[in-house]
Amino acid sequence: MCESKVFLATAEGEELVLEDVTSIRPEGDGYRLATLFGEQAHVRGRIKDIDLLKHRVVLEPLP
Amino acid sequence: MCESKVFLATAEGEELVLEDVTSIRPEGDGYRLATLFGEQAHVRGRIKDIDLLKHRVVLEPLP
Repeated sequence: MCESKVFLATAEGEELVLEDVTSIRPEGDGYRLATLFGEQAHVRGRIKDIDLLKHRVVLEPLP
Repeated sequence: MCESKVFLATAEGEELVLEDVTSIRPEGDGYRLATLFGEQAHVRGRIKDIDLLKHRVVLEPLP
């Protein structure tokens, strides 16, 4: 399976927002995340890095 | 493996940009794509949809 962990990059490092994410869609000033299990979250920010080998998506706050 | 196909949404449908993509990073007015095999492409546009179950990333032109 190809679920990813989604992180938010902060000044202190990377904060885990949600695991097992399968869907990422733009919504408002950020992205709507959804997992295999129906869990959802909205994160304000923009894409910083997507690494599908490491199953990592990193968002960063808007400037 | 979790490589994805990256498509660009156009008025005519979705155009395949690159397969086996493992890395997506913002660059300029779009994204730099890279594959497992070192192939790279740059696409102008923004994220429209990421579906990791279907191994699909769809970009759309900037408005």
